[in-house]
Amino acid sequence: MKVRKLVVVGGVAGGASAAAKARRCSEEVEIVMYEKGPDISYANCGLPYYLSGVIEKREDLLITSSEFFRRRFRVDARTRCEVVEIDRKRKRVVVNNLATGLTEEEAYDRLVLAPGSHPIIPPVPGVDLAFVSTLKTLEDTDRIFSFLKEKKPRRAVVVGSGLIGVEAIENLALKGLEITAVELAPQLLTFLDWEMAEKVRWHMQHKGVKIHLSEGLASVEEKNGQGIVRTDQGREILTDLVLISVGIKPNVDLAKNAGLKVGITGGIKVNEFMQTSDPDIFAAGDCIETTNLVTGKPTLTPMGSAANKEGRAAGANALGRRVAIKGFTGTIIVKVFDLTVAKTGLSEREASLEGYSPLALYVDPSQHAGYYPGAKALSIKTVTDRDSGRLLGAQVIGEEGVDKRIDVLATAMYHHMSLEDLLNLDLAYAPPYSAARDPVIIAGAVGQNYYQGDWDPITPQELKEKMTSGEDIVLIDVRNRLELKERDPLPGAIHIPIDLLRREVEKLDPHKETIVYCAQGLRSYLGNRILNLKGFKRVKTLSGGLDNWMYEMGTKDSGSRTD
Amino acid sequence: MKVRKLVVVGGVAGGASAAAKARRCSEEVEIVMYEKGPDISYANCGLPYYLSGVIEKREDLLITSSEFFRRRFRVDARTRCEVVEIDRKRKRVVVNNLATGLTEEEAYDRLVLAPGSHPIIPPVPGVDLAFVSTLKTLEDTDRIFSFLKEKKPRRAVVVGSGLIGVEAIENLALKGLEITAVELAPQLLTFLDWEMAEKVRWHMQHKGVKIHLSEGLASVEEKNGQGIVRTDQGREILTDLVLISVGIKPNVDLAKNAGLKVGITGGIKVNEFMQTSDPDIFAAGDCIETTNLVTGKPTLTPMGSAANKEGRAAGANALGRRVAIKGFTGTIIVKVFDLTVAKTGLSEREASLEGYSPLALYVDPSQHAGYYPGAKALSIKTVTDRDSGRLLGAQVIGEEGVDKRIDVLATAMYHHMSLEDLLNLDLAYAPPYSAARDPVIIAGAVGQNYYQGDWDPITPQELKEKMTSGEDIVLIDVRNRLELKERDPLPGAIHIPIDLLRREVEKLDPHKETIVYCAQGLRSYLGNRILNLKGFKRVKTLSGGLDNWMYEMGTKDSGSRTD
Repeated sequence: MKVRKLVVVGGVAGGASAAAKARRCSEEVEIVMYEKGPDISYANCGLPYYLSGVIEKREDLLITSSEFFRRRFRVDARTRCEVVEIDRKRKRVVVNNLATGLTEEEAYDRLVLAPGSHPIIPPVPGVDLAFVSTLKTLEDTDRIFSFLKEKKPRRAVVVGSGLIGVEAIENLALKGLEITAVELAPQLLTFLDWEMAEKVRWHMQHKGVKIHLSEGLASVEEKNGQGIVRTDQGREILTDLVLISVGIKPNVDLAKNAGLKVGITGGIKVNEFMQTSDPDIFAAGDCIETTNLVTGKPTLTPMGSAANKEGRAAGANALGRRVAIKGFTGTIIVKVFDLTVAKTGLSEREASLEGYSPLALYVDPSQHAGYYPGAKALSIKTVTDRDSGRLLGAQVIGEEGVDKRIDVLATAMYHHMSLEDLLNLDLAYAPPYSAARDPVIIAGAVGQNYYQGDWDPITPQELKEKMTSGEDIVLIDVRNRLELKERDPLPGAIHIPIDLLRREVEKLDPHKETIVYCAQGLRSYLGNRILNLKGFKRVKTLSGGLDNWMYEMGTKDSGSRTD
Repeated sequence: MKVRKLVVVGGVAGGASAAAKARRCSEEVEIVMYEKGPDISYANCGLPYYLSGVIEKREDLLITSSEFFRRRFRVDARTRCEVVEIDRKRKRVVVNNLATGLTEEEAYDRLVLAPGSHPIIPPVPGVDLAFVSTLKTLEDTDRIFSFLKEKKPRRAVVVGSGLIGVEAIENLALKGLEITAVELAPQLLTFLDWEMAEKVRWHMQHKGVKIHLSEGLASVEEKNGQGIVRTDQGREILTDLVLISVGIKPNVDLAKNAGLKVGITGGIKVNEFMQTSDPDIFAAGDCIETTNLVTGKPTLTPMGSAANKEGRAAGANALGRRVAIKGFTGTIIVKVFDLTVAKTGLSEREASLEGYSPLALYVDPSQHAGYYPGAKALSIKTVTDRDSGRLLGAQVIGEEGVDKRIDVLATAMYHHMSLEDLLNLDLAYAPPYSAARDPVIIAGAVGQNYYQGDWDPITPQELKEKMTSGEDIVLIDVRNRLELKERDPLPGAIHIPIDLLRREVEKLDPHKETIVYCAQGLRSYLGNRILNLKGFKRVKTLSGGLDNWMYEMGTKDSGSRTD
């Protein structure tokens, strides 16, 4: 069938990509693109940075325009037009023109759905007050921007600490507001494991953000001209502005009402060609269900990068091409003040839930040669399927070089690489960029050492449980004397500096379970080897060392873990 | 056989790694490590940065010491000791103690050779003068450092422009010296293709470096207290300091004299376990021959990162382990003033020499979202096996984000990934780190567009040849009028702004070969599509656009190309 007319629903990332690609596949097809909002193809992911002034001009957020789409791609881009119904039998869409209030119908041969997602609003009193907002669209942003300018709020409460939540926190804080974060989960950024999220929490607290975990929003009210946020823990927080960012949901009503299949994740079901259960209807962006390439299971991937790829594929395939999008490894990155926080694949908790027996290992190398100025520590956690050795996920936190390592690890995971085999990657080395042993290579070597039986790691969580339950273990701190003053040894630990361990080994009981630790795990690994080679059979090393021990300095102890 | 004694020859990267790893495999083995120089395990790759003061303290270059190796690893590290002979029959090495002048013998059960490499010195008069030096060892560096301090040279000539050459140029220039570079090849950094190396040359010239290509060193002399460098083109350059960095050669005499096999590349032959032709002798670092994972052929990989991995494997395997090093994809990175210059795999020229029919494609996206402050252009060249679609190599040049992209591409190449499949990588996206379409994703999409028949690229080199030979082509510049003022159109081009192309298409001859270009290749790709879809059969797009056209502004034209 010759495709004479393509209708695209949604004109931001997925929709605009689809329309532009469709034009490159045919000069003859008529393309109509409907966008509910006033702008097409704006920089959704840049919105928080406009609030702080990091992005200075509103026009920088406008990547393109209806006029441009008409001129360059001969796409009839109609803004403020909401598609409210799909008549699949007659192959027509019903459109509300929000400017005129009129309803019109438009025929299609092929249809691409890219209506995006909407923010979840907790069903509590007061969320409709004027100083309460979400931060999802350019309109939201404009409203908050004006509010900041006119009302000059001093304080803000940010409810929810996902990607948009923490970006909002940073940017409102940069703007000078006092921020309180309220998060229902017992940690920030729930895609991370708890102890990694703790590093982010400390950093944000250090930057002056007040954080309340395990607290849900109960209500918002206005009293004597100021806002009050109440949490389900009975807390009252006075504020001038409330930002709600507790998650998003795919916009699927249009598809659902038309009888298109929706998956168990709540996204529109598509095949790898972005084709819905109706072969003439394609879908792309936040509204669809994607495939997690690690588990092979359906997931949601509401990212601009995904929407662009999917839109391109949907636009091509609607015109008869075969462009496949296999899925996503689940790569996430977010800037949190001076930190970059990133993840790909599964967290340890997610891997457990998926039925794997996860091996969690930590390394803390610097992002480039230590002797080159500006070296900064990275904190890397790898999650491996203990049995097969396959890398299932990684989390990386640090000030510099985080994005590089997560992208290398995401590429490795796309290829179902084993942890050990990371060691074989030929990563670029010169002192300004990496160390002779790149952090990813170190993660691979540490994994190979494990699989060769050279050491047995224990995670902070496991050690904490042993200590709490009073197990009969010998805990050895192999740091030097100076370091002990900087940070206290763990309770019950005996101190044997690594270079004296060989001499002192005779005083230890080779039959007892012995756990060695240092600051980051390198010296304790040597300690583990020395003890093993001296006949100790039950030796473990605290993976990641004390730098990775999140229990002492936090406000909560292991009871606060989420799993 | 129980390994009672391990002897390691060389104590810098490969040797020190081997000795430390061996200790972690056995507490019983006696380990003796010989180093010819006065220091073990120093930061070889940091040396140029110490000359400029970027690395401030000499002690920062000393990663570890003999004393430390003795204390922590019980390695008997003997410096200023040169191993001059291996008696394989009696399993002994003969050692010259350079401090005492005495010769001693030492028995071994297993031997690890890591004697490194030595700089090539052109056999011309004057290279032994006091103001002529190489920059390979810490001793070289100390000598140059003192020279800079005492003689306060104003000018330097750097002969050779490989990695160490360009690092030396940058760091001596930072120190305030006027630099002249003399390079025998018709380009800098010969691992790059010519047009990519040209970008580096322009940048260096912009930084005030004088560069003479296709000129060899003829002689150095001293006259009236100043140095004179003469080139084989008759040029005379007055100077105060001469640095020679024309390449290195593996140190293989010791191995060769002992009858160990040396490969065609000139490096010691080892299997993937770093084992030489004598099963009791292992080797690691600059002295060995490695495997190029792209071609499967032997190569040399004289990099600190390689030496560390190889040393670790050699140390483990000498003690009975089985740690394999498969080879290297050939990843290289170097800082050149504000630029980062990187490569992995094969250049276009190398791919041709290997018998491939290379597809060279260029993309020039910015390293992160254009609307986020600090966006800088990257210049990416991918080299693909045209028939199979397999990615063979990539070159990336830019100010930021280069190291990330080359490492992702190196990881992709490790997995023999196709160019198209890059599009499927799930790379981390947030505005400070990337764009919704990451540069690597764009490279993949551009490749997919090619393989789907959507466009036909022409490289600047190919177009230049067509123009020079006077072929009957139609050349269309689709940029806008303003851009034309910024940079002239190519000779003979007609100007049709992209948005007018549809209207003007009737005036063009669909049977003629038509080549479309713009600034970077995006609009010309759309132009290519429009013309194809209007029935033009012989359309090509200038890959990378005018930004990638190196002929007009350089001092030489296509005659200077190297192939």
